[in-house]
Amino acid sequence: MAHEFRWIQQVQFSDTDMAGIVHFSNFFRYMENTEHAFFRSLGFSIHTRIGDTTVGWPRVRATCEYKAPLRFEDEFEILLTVREKKLRSLTYDFSFTKLTGELVATGTLTAVCVTLDEPTGRMKAAKIPEEITAVIEAAPVVDA
Amino acid sequence: MAHEFRWIQQVQFSDTDMAGIVHFSNFFRYMENTEHAFFRSLGFSIHTRIGDTTVGWPRVRATCEYKAPLRFEDEFEILLTVREKKLRSLTYDFSFTKLTGELVATGTLTAVCVTLDEPTGRMKAAKIPEEITAVIEAAPVVDA
Amino acid sequence: MAHEFRWIQQVQFSDTDMAGIVHFSNFFRYMENTEHAFFRSLGFSIHTRIGDTTVGWPRVRATCEYKAPLRFEDEFEILLTVREKKLRSLTYDFSFTKLTGELVATGTLTAVCVTLDEPTGRMKAAKIPEEITAVIEAAPVVDA
Amino acid sequence: MAHEFRWIQQVQFSDTDMAGIVHFSNFFRYMENTEHAFFRSLGFSIHTRIGDTTVGWPRVRATCEYKAPLRFEDEFEILLTVREKKLRSLTYDFSFTKLTGELVATGTLTAVCVTLDEPTGRMKAAKIPEEITAVIEAAPVVDA
Repeated sequence: MAHEFRWIQQVQFSDTDMAGIVHFSNFFRYMENTEHAFFRSLGFSIHTRIGDTTVGWPRVRATCEYKAPLRFEDEFEILLTVREKKLRSLTYDFSFTKLTGELVATGTLTAVCVTLDEPTGRMKAAKIPEEITAVIEAAPVVDA
Repeated sequence: MAHEFRWIQQVQFSDTDMAGIVHFSNFFRYMENTEHAFFRSLGFSIHTRIGDTTVGWPRVRATCEYKAPLRFEDEFEILLTVREKKLRSLTYDFSFTKLTGELVATGTLTAVCVTLDEPTGRMKAAKIPEEITAVIEAAPVVDA
Repeated sequence: MAHEFRWIQQVQFSDTDMAGIVHFSNFFRYMENTEHAFFRSLGFSIHTRIGDTTVGWPRVRATCEYKAPLRFEDEFEILLTVREKKLRSLTYDFSFTKLTGELVATGTLTAVCVTLDEPTGRMKAAKIPEEITAVIEAAPVVDA
Repeated sequence: MAHEFRWIQQVQFSDTDMAGIVHFSNFFRYMENTEHAFFRSLGFSIHTRIGDTTVGWPRVRATCEYKAPLRFEDEFEILLTVREKKLRSLTYDFSFTKLTGELVATGTLTAVCVTLDEPTGRMKAAKIPEEITAVIEAAPVVDA
């Protein structure tokens, strides 16, 4: 049972804006890329076909708190922690830390499991498939 | 004194992802574009040179709650409301509504006023310039 | 029969990079947005369902020559000209001009008409639907 | 003296569009990321401060020919080849190939060396710095 995942990423030029720092919206792309890498590390794709339904994970909530800027070519670690596992949704916490140890940002993402009706593209909330709940768990709560 | 701004935008193809809907990170770009249009409506640019310092507005917090998807070519209204005006920061609320009346998402953005040191790109928190505080106010609080 | 379309756009903050100018890849998004606005001006969506097939326009070639940078909040006109209409493809020329008259960039896009097989997402080259060929024509060739 | 560089990248979810494939504009970001990784492999950053001038590489021309789509989580190799080295510019060829061997796209990028005037952001074409010309060369021309 997995409840965390970490990897190191590097800021690309097109992630920056004219203020010389990573555009704030890109932290959400970084969170998502990490969520997907977490799924891959467990042998899943986030966009899975199980039998003849496609399972997707649209977001219901996303937040980010920015502590320090990231700049071009900065390397940073993203740590994903599974905060909550419900019947139909997963909530993740994220932290972004420079390799120097400086905390850059923290964030959260809540994704709800849906099945996609292919012809129309309509989405319907669904129970998280068993093969996924079998390997992902919420992180133990730690007393602060 | 202004405390709200609204405009209508349309979903572009490159805003969508393979799930057929606007990628969730783009709502943050939409919020920012609206903040900048609000500033322009008051005669300012968000990236202003006042005397010989450049004033910028990095984000300290951004959140979004997603209620319904937006799809290619959907037209939607974004309403910005100034929630809080502090000495060094502004907090905005946003709502995204389809022209059919359906609420798509709500969000918030807190931006802190900084001065930029041009040679180094370093940012320092600063009081909001007087010409800006003179025209922007927090929205009156409404009893629910 | 239409063979050109023009509109005015404005540079958004998230279009810029740390060099303080519009990231070169965004000119391709600007071209595409213009192509889609051209289609809408003729009463079509670029992503059309005709009967029960979906018609799409993947690109086979895209080019851009950059003459001058665009900066945040610059307003510029994009002119689309239909350069070539073939049985299965359309080629467009684009020019980007600041409202001051300065030429910023020129580009081209060749898009091929395909039908999309919904369950698999596979694309197959197809003749341009008659309702589209009925209203779009190549621009007359002008002696230089 | 280096004249080529290759690495393997993977398609991220936010690179895709509603047609289910990588948005064509992202191939230009992929090319740029590869150019920068090439520079790093030689010990340089693309955005270098040499003495007290900043050297940048704005693009004068970019092209891409698309042969096959890339989809979410596809892994692909990008090969950069230095096609031409001039006094003030470098031209690169790129090829994108799936790990299955399928050619996905080819592209080119011409970047001109400039020095940036920090206070104003103005750019001036400049000779490529000697430390860079000392390590980058055009690829030998091969008879077809």
